Amino acid sequence: MERIKERIAEIYPRMVEWRRDFHRNPELSFKEKETAQKVASILKSLGLEVRTGIGGHGLVGLLRGKGPGRTVALRSDMDALPIQDEKDCSYRSQVPGVMHACGHDGHMATLLGAAAVLTELREQWDGSILFLFQHAEELLPGGAVSMIDAGVLDGVDAIFGVHLWTPLPCGVIGIRSGELMASADSFEVEIIGKGGHGGLPHEAVDSVVIASHVIVQLQTIISRCLNPLDSGVITVGQIEAGNAFNVIAERCRFWGTVRAFKQETREAIVARMEEVIQGVCRMFGADYRFDYTWGYPPVVNEPAATDILAESAKAIVGEQGVWQIDPVMAGEDFAYYLKQRPGAFCFVGAGNTERNITAPHHHPLFDFDEEAMKIGAELWVRTAMRFLGSGKGE
Amino acid sequence: MERIKERIAEIYPRMVEWRRDFHRNPELSFKEKETAQKVASILKSLGLEVRTGIGGHGLVGLLRGKGPGRTVALRSDMDALPIQDEKDCSYRSQVPGVMHACGHDGHMATLLGAAAVLTELREQWDGSILFLFQHAEELLPGGAVSMIDAGVLDGVDAIFGVHLWTPLPCGVIGIRSGELMASADSFEVEIIGKGGHGGLPHEAVDSVVIASHVIVQLQTIISRCLNPLDSGVITVGQIEAGNAFNVIAERCRFWGTVRAFKQETREAIVARMEEVIQGVCRMFGADYRFDYTWGYPPVVNEPAATDILAESAKAIVGEQGVWQIDPVMAGEDFAYYLKQRPGAFCFVGAGNTERNITAPHHHPLFDFDEEAMKIGAELWVRTAMRFLGSGKGE
Amino acid sequence: MERIKERIAEIYPRMVEWRRDFHRNPELSFKEKETAQKVASILKSLGLEVRTGIGGHGLVGLLRGKGPGRTVALRSDMDALPIQDEKDCSYRSQVPGVMHACGHDGHMATLLGAAAVLTELREQWDGSILFLFQHAEELLPGGAVSMIDAGVLDGVDAIFGVHLWTPLPCGVIGIRSGELMASADSFEVEIIGKGGHGGLPHEAVDSVVIASHVIVQLQTIISRCLNPLDSGVITVGQIEAGNAFNVIAERCRFWGTVRAFKQETREAIVARMEEVIQGVCRMFGADYRFDYTWGYPPVVNEPAATDILAESAKAIVGEQGVWQIDPVMAGEDFAYYLKQRPGAFCFVGAGNTERNITAPHHHPLFDFDEEAMKIGAELWVRTAMRFLGSGKGE
Amino acid sequence: MERIKERIAEIYPRMVEWRRDFHRNPELSFKEKETAQKVASILKSLGLEVRTGIGGHGLVGLLRGKGPGRTVALRSDMDALPIQDEKDCSYRSQVPGVMHACGHDGHMATLLGAAAVLTELREQWDGSILFLFQHAEELLPGGAVSMIDAGVLDGVDAIFGVHLWTPLPCGVIGIRSGELMASADSFEVEIIGKGGHGGLPHEAVDSVVIASHVIVQLQTIISRCLNPLDSGVITVGQIEAGNAFNVIAERCRFWGTVRAFKQETREAIVARMEEVIQGVCRMFGADYRFDYTWGYPPVVNEPAATDILAESAKAIVGEQGVWQIDPVMAGEDFAYYLKQRPGAFCFVGAGNTERNITAPHHHPLFDFDEEAMKIGAELWVRTAMRFLGSGKGE
Repeated sequence: MERIKERIAEIYPRMVEWRRDFHRNPELSFKEKETAQKVASILKSLGLEVRTGIGGHGLVGLLRGKGPGRTVALRSDMDALPIQDEKDCSYRSQVPGVMHACGHDGHMATLLGAAAVLTELREQWDGSILFLFQHAEELLPGGAVSMIDAGVLDGVDAIFGVHLWTPLPCGVIGIRSGELMASADSFEVEIIGKGGHGGLPHEAVDSVVIASHVIVQLQTIISRCLNPLDSGVITVGQIEAGNAFNVIAERCRFWGTVRAFKQETREAIVARMEEVIQGVCRMFGADYRFDYTWGYPPVVNEPAATDILAESAKAIVGEQGVWQIDPVMAGEDFAYYLKQRPGAFCFVGAGNTERNITAPHHHPLFDFDEEAMKIGAELWVRTAMRFLGSGKGE
Repeated sequence: MERIKERIAEIYPRMVEWRRDFHRNPELSFKEKETAQKVASILKSLGLEVRTGIGGHGLVGLLRGKGPGRTVALRSDMDALPIQDEKDCSYRSQVPGVMHACGHDGHMATLLGAAAVLTELREQWDGSILFLFQHAEELLPGGAVSMIDAGVLDGVDAIFGVHLWTPLPCGVIGIRSGELMASADSFEVEIIGKGGHGGLPHEAVDSVVIASHVIVQLQTIISRCLNPLDSGVITVGQIEAGNAFNVIAERCRFWGTVRAFKQETREAIVARMEEVIQGVCRMFGADYRFDYTWGYPPVVNEPAATDILAESAKAIVGEQGVWQIDPVMAGEDFAYYLKQRPGAFCFVGAGNTERNITAPHHHPLFDFDEEAMKIGAELWVRTAMRFLGSGKGE
Repeated sequence: MERIKERIAEIYPRMVEWRRDFHRNPELSFKEKETAQKVASILKSLGLEVRTGIGGHGLVGLLRGKGPGRTVALRSDMDALPIQDEKDCSYRSQVPGVMHACGHDGHMATLLGAAAVLTELREQWDGSILFLFQHAEELLPGGAVSMIDAGVLDGVDAIFGVHLWTPLPCGVIGIRSGELMASADSFEVEIIGKGGHGGLPHEAVDSVVIASHVIVQLQTIISRCLNPLDSGVITVGQIEAGNAFNVIAERCRFWGTVRAFKQETREAIVARMEEVIQGVCRMFGADYRFDYTWGYPPVVNEPAATDILAESAKAIVGEQGVWQIDPVMAGEDFAYYLKQRPGAFCFVGAGNTERNITAPHHHPLFDFDEEAMKIGAELWVRTAMRFLGSGKGE
Repeated sequence: MERIKERIAEIYPRMVEWRRDFHRNPELSFKEKETAQKVASILKSLGLEVRTGIGGHGLVGLLRGKGPGRTVALRSDMDALPIQDEKDCSYRSQVPGVMHACGHDGHMATLLGAAAVLTELREQWDGSILFLFQHAEELLPGGAVSMIDAGVLDGVDAIFGVHLWTPLPCGVIGIRSGELMASADSFEVEIIGKGGHGGLPHEAVDSVVIASHVIVQLQTIISRCLNPLDSGVITVGQIEAGNAFNVIAERCRFWGTVRAFKQETREAIVARMEEVIQGVCRMFGADYRFDYTWGYPPVVNEPAATDILAESAKAIVGEQGVWQIDPVMAGEDFAYYLKQRPGAFCFVGAGNTERNITAPHHHPLFDFDEEAMKIGAELWVRTAMRFLGSGKGE
């Protein structure tokens, strides 16, 4: 197996080249046309069977091993963000206001590198590997749903995903069985009272006081209605009402997000929220509008698949380098694949304080340590082979 | 005394002329330069001793009766509002964005008419009458304070004020002993928490939840800390926090008004507000800014002076026409004079639904029934003479 | 009229005798059998037409003047309280646990004294005086309702009531036009949640948290739903839940009182209370019981009748002795008479700090300055005669 | 190793005998004198070195293997509860009001059985086994602290504990790495306001409204101040204020419990509670008393020790019988040992619905399936031997 590391080292310059090309030419969610063409062209050049236009700009490349066997899918996302790149470097984004500020460029390069190596090692494993390049991870409703609807998981036995992650240092792989990433829903509430003179509260229905009561009561949902062993968050991030200090505001609007790791927690929160808003409005004679947008479900790793990832990771970065991490409060539409197939998602450390690579994801100065792509590619290779059976004996 | 009504009828056309001239040429608070000149010129033409530039554009005309006696002040305000006149009539405002939308034009014309009549009747009363034309009633800190500071009340025994009032029909005079108009203060609160990721509340200090707690607790000041026999209002008219639904807002600002009829109520409310804001902020680790702007104090009519007004009113509109009214939740800087001298303020009905004069004060279509100026002028004349002693026997 | 004061002075020793006899032999509400017999016997001895058993132990004595005219009713109450008399004096209560701790003994003696004097002065007035002795003022539903239902007000043109009042010094009469005494209702609320393990809130419905939310929200009824010019109070005086610190309480009960001066305020408060309780319970999945007991309505004095009382008072204690008082937050079933007939109620000062008569009403050491009975009797006499017309000219 | 199961089967009748004797003669916490004597006598009869009176009625028996090595402690508790036994069976408690209602009788019998077997197997293991019988698990401050203070852990390398657990069926062993049982603290809060007339809130400081505000605000500690990944509960189980519905209560007291799985969570909750109580009291002018009683800390299993338990369990009940369980919201003073030494605690299923053994722990009808003692004893034997090194190869 030592050959894997060598082969990755050999292909690494091309991975960097690919990555920087993607970085220079980012495309927004649902608009990844040229990116998909480039990926498809590389996959084809490697000899894979490529299918494009799956549920949008999604595409896959299929690689068959030496004999029949199971099929494992490896997934990368492809879209960039509506952020202006403020880095000063050769591979800076050339598209004003669009930037690969989350590392999806690296995901593609890493998975393409893994495809190249796995092609070379084809004689060492049975079954098939599906290289899945998904569009639109950053924007609801996400690309995963439409690719699944288009049948991309047909015949697939398991699926794995990797995220380059700058909060972890390069050299570390972050693993967790079970709940890994939260659902992240959003909501908008409008309290519709009755405006009026600031000195005559009894002739008005004060939307600001009602909204305050609602927000205070929302706390009790978290504190008393959820199982204390489960996590749940209701955050009201924005609020707005009124135009004059001395006029009672007819309408108060607020916007927020709900996070949870279990579907039942999400559903309990939404149901209670509606009851709280409705209850407070009714008691003070107000009306309301409550719009709840379901975001991605929680990412829940299957234990056995997580073990495969963990064993592969241990082989690369040693026991010390595999960190059991806490769940992360962000969302990922990889969650949809995990509702259909066993699998797991993990984080490959890509930060480097010595080299000053510290900007958080989605930041205008975001970058990652490209060395992490070597680790990521090796993780892909070993995980796929381990799942397909050839990695068992090591 | 029948001659009073006659004389007022005779002078009424000039009152209308004056009023419409003022209406066409409104000047904002603290900028009533030309208005003051016109008033001064009319007062001089009537033979009064005029003093201008009192505490700003304020001015007075002094009229002496046939013999020595007490001095009574009659007050009109002079300023207009930053409102675009949307009426369609010959005397519409010629100044874009400035308008006599509260009736101060009528107050001046009415008081000038009264001055003319009282001049003619000079042989029938002793003492002196001070015609007090005040600038800047509409804008804090108001003109009354500076005129008082400039000594305008020196030698004055009592002061009366009249407001043309469209919520009451023309033909009615609204009277009340004691608390008549509220203090109207304003405040701004800024809760300074710590922004953060919407899914990580423990790393942030949520200014929106804290503001909601504060607003809920403010209710208890009114419900439990005030004497239930006293009136007090805390209204939060405007609130604003955050830029994103999924980010905990560092700062939440809200603005509001406090109304009361007693100085001690106002002071109790402010003190408690600070305690509530401070208490909630401390308990959740936030900081705050609390700016309280003291508006005009409450207008509290002296009972004996109110009786004089009421008796004069009865002589004009009959017992049916004199209405005991509820206190009004708006403010007036006439309050400052009443803290220095006995006196009273009242409302002369100036609405007329038949003639479609119904727009509220401060409205772009505001107007009043000019007939009300006859009633107002007669009320001035009778009140002054009654106070000075010559009206007793009627 | 000077003869009135003299005659009262002459009869005063008998008033004291009567009062002390009543004081020694108090009877609880609805049980004033012997008290009523004594009163009836005195009235008969004065020559009045007496009717007993009106709506219970209530009775009246009718006195006719020299000619035909209007009828005025003067009302005293008769019942004592379930309080142990802790005074040490000759006229201390002889009935264990029962005491005239509110002054109704004095009311009876005072009104009987007035009856004696008015009988003597019969030639000086026309019309009739109805001396109304009411049972059960202290206990809901009160005796007034049943006496009215029994027709006691038939033919009556106006009614007056007087309360000896130790918070005011003897020598003062407290007067107020309009709202004088509050309605005083009571309520009981039971929040019915679901008990459970203190560490498992999601399996329970926490009645304590729900009750807390309800009590916090009740504040907003007072602060935002009532006209700030009106008075209203909701007090929760008692609360009780749970038996163990570590078990979530299934039920939380609380008890309180509502005070107001207007029927519409009371009704608004009750309606909102139900909405608040229901709303909070619904939103957290609890059930509830809300029992509201309507107490006496507010006592609202008719202005003209109040003027008559005030004029009479002035004649007795001088202008200085007549105090315009604030409304009182206690209740009185005299309110029911005022809903049927014009009339007024007032307070005759009966405290005396020099003589150490300071215990509040309903206190085990309660007593009053018996001199106040002279003032009370004179107030009865003058008020009745003034109302009937003979007092006009004084 | 098959011999272990056989040997346990042979000794089982004595285990039952011991258990029933303990059950018949329960002793309350800190009063386990005779129980300790019985245990000591059995241990001595097995040939162990026994030390008694450790930190109270605690005692230990030391058993040495064939050669030098590490030392492992196995812990049982010994105390009963102040509950009246309502079972109807031969081994029912003979002590009125005292009962082994939590299974500590079974713990002792099980551990004694294990001691007997391990004595026989002495030639198969090296090192030492310390059989630790702890007094007073049920009552604060617990016996663990004083036994540790008395040096019971000197020379001990690891410690294990087992609880017979009727919520799990007999045949199952419940395991969890990390946080297993919650801390369980208690608190008492007294809000000290100022009593007063129910109609005069401004003259009082209403302890009921203040307590309600405090309880509402406590919710925000859980919802916003804790890491959503951590568990924390604040329950107010009991509240009490006032004696009359129409009197504002001077004092409101409430009692509750705090649960958490991390020391830092507990500490954060207490600190915030004090801030909330203090903050609300200050803002409404009240005083307070806040007594917080620290209960046992959370039980946190060391991962490696948990693995040893899990492997031993698997050997007994198979992979299916080893359940990964959720944390439990109850407390255990075994927590103190784990703060000093590596180790783990687990639950041995002892319920049996077919045999109608379903009453919860601490219930007057509590009992357990005695068959579970076989599993418990085997778990002790295997765990000790595995830890000491002889169990590795199986």
